[in-house]
Amino acid sequence: MSYTAWIISIGNELLIGKTVNTNAAWLAKKLTLLGYEVRRVITIPDNEEDEVEVFRDAVRRGIRVVISTGGLGPTFDDRTSEYLAKALNRKYVINDDALRMVVETFKAKGLELTEPRLKQAKMPEGARPLPNPVGTAPGIWVEEGNTIIIALPGVPSEMMGIFENYVEPKLREIGPKLHFVEKSITVKGVPEADLAPIIERGMKMSSRVYIKSHPKGHEIRAPLVEIHIYVSSEDVRNAENEINKIVDYLVTSIKEKGGEILS
Amino acid sequence: MSYTAWIISIGNELLIGKTVNTNAAWLAKKLTLLGYEVRRVITIPDNEEDEVEVFRDAVRRGIRVVISTGGLGPTFDDRTSEYLAKALNRKYVINDDALRMVVETFKAKGLELTEPRLKQAKMPEGARPLPNPVGTAPGIWVEEGNTIIIALPGVPSEMMGIFENYVEPKLREIGPKLHFVEKSITVKGVPEADLAPIIERGMKMSSRVYIKSHPKGHEIRAPLVEIHIYVSSEDVRNAENEINKIVDYLVTSIKEKGGEILS
Repeated sequence: MSYTAWIISIGNELLIGKTVNTNAAWLAKKLTLLGYEVRRVITIPDNEEDEVEVFRDAVRRGIRVVISTGGLGPTFDDRTSEYLAKALNRKYVINDDALRMVVETFKAKGLELTEPRLKQAKMPEGARPLPNPVGTAPGIWVEEGNTIIIALPGVPSEMMGIFENYVEPKLREIGPKLHFVEKSITVKGVPEADLAPIIERGMKMSSRVYIKSHPKGHEIRAPLVEIHIYVSSEDVRNAENEINKIVDYLVTSIKEKGGEILS
Repeated sequence: MSYTAWIISIGNELLIGKTVNTNAAWLAKKLTLLGYEVRRVITIPDNEEDEVEVFRDAVRRGIRVVISTGGLGPTFDDRTSEYLAKALNRKYVINDDALRMVVETFKAKGLELTEPRLKQAKMPEGARPLPNPVGTAPGIWVEEGNTIIIALPGVPSEMMGIFENYVEPKLREIGPKLHFVEKSITVKGVPEADLAPIIERGMKMSSRVYIKSHPKGHEIRAPLVEIHIYVSSEDVRNAENEINKIVDYLVTSIKEKGGEILS
């Protein structure tokens, strides 16, 4: 079994330079950390010809995991789900589970259930919807031959929310057998914004490290931040060496900033 | 004549999420402003199979302008020039003009002319080197059928330096006949860093506007910044309307920040 991946970024805003493709970098990091090898990132416009071609190309090459972002919203040019159905030669149908999710979300938000919004419940036949903890459009999980295609919204918070809650656990389960080690440190006296560049440099120390900060105290008055460090590797000892190296770097840099390490 | 473009981003650091692809966004914006339609951005690793495939694919489709970034440095895995020669079925040879540039640069910087550095003078037969005002590796301009392929370094300052000095003027010359209008405003009392988000929003108001700030005074003590706004359009009146809209927005936003417009 190979653990290859493609990322397909859909949207004209990326092709006119209006938006920097931070989604692709975020997903590439996550997939690498899970042990997948990202072979290609392809950015294409919201149009049938390109989307059908690229989805089919990924399936033909037997890429294991294909993640697309963009084109799941309610507007007329959000047609990724429809083009994906076409690429897989499947019907484009109302998915009952997706319909329940969409109806619930709209009720909860007090929104009217209009035709364009109902469209968000339509998917390729045989697909599974992925709940959206942030917005209204469910993600899509569909398998074709050896390939899993996951379509996510382009809004970063929605893309991340669906990925972390419903995609990451499954990809970890079916991915390579990696060892994960994690550590947490709690920092007093340095606001999260000042920790950001330190964390960013730490993230670049290894391709399979992920560092996340969780603010606990008051951002300015009494900053207290928990930093969670997470490393994956085929080899336990290697993972432990990596995490120690990164924790050492973080602790040194934070102390230089006048921060106190509580644990 | 169609004015299509592809951007090919080469480098593993992009595929493991270590680097966000800001080069592609910058080039996409520039190409759009010049009247080219960016159809695709493709990120691939530094390897022969992918590079040869993607360059050939672009030529086969008759894409007018193909710009690659990355893989022109002196290290063993910087092999874009060699793979490009292979993709075009051309010899990979020392280019005399490139050799002169490389030798001059090394002399000026007092660097020794080693074998890996000499490699930067090798190009596909029939290519033209593009001087690098920032670093050592010249860019490459090579034409095949209807397609112009331009290979640039991945380091943003080098990529931008070569593009603005040697690529942009030529692409404008052979590109669609656009009308350019420009205006400058000079701002007193707002540091450039505080103008950045305002300029960023202004850039997003139209796909064919470019805004650049030039600091003139002292950044903190007496900030004085010239802002240059630049719009392109097939239609003069449309370009003027666009630029007026954007200047209005900038002036209003800068005054809200307490800035003074000197001209």
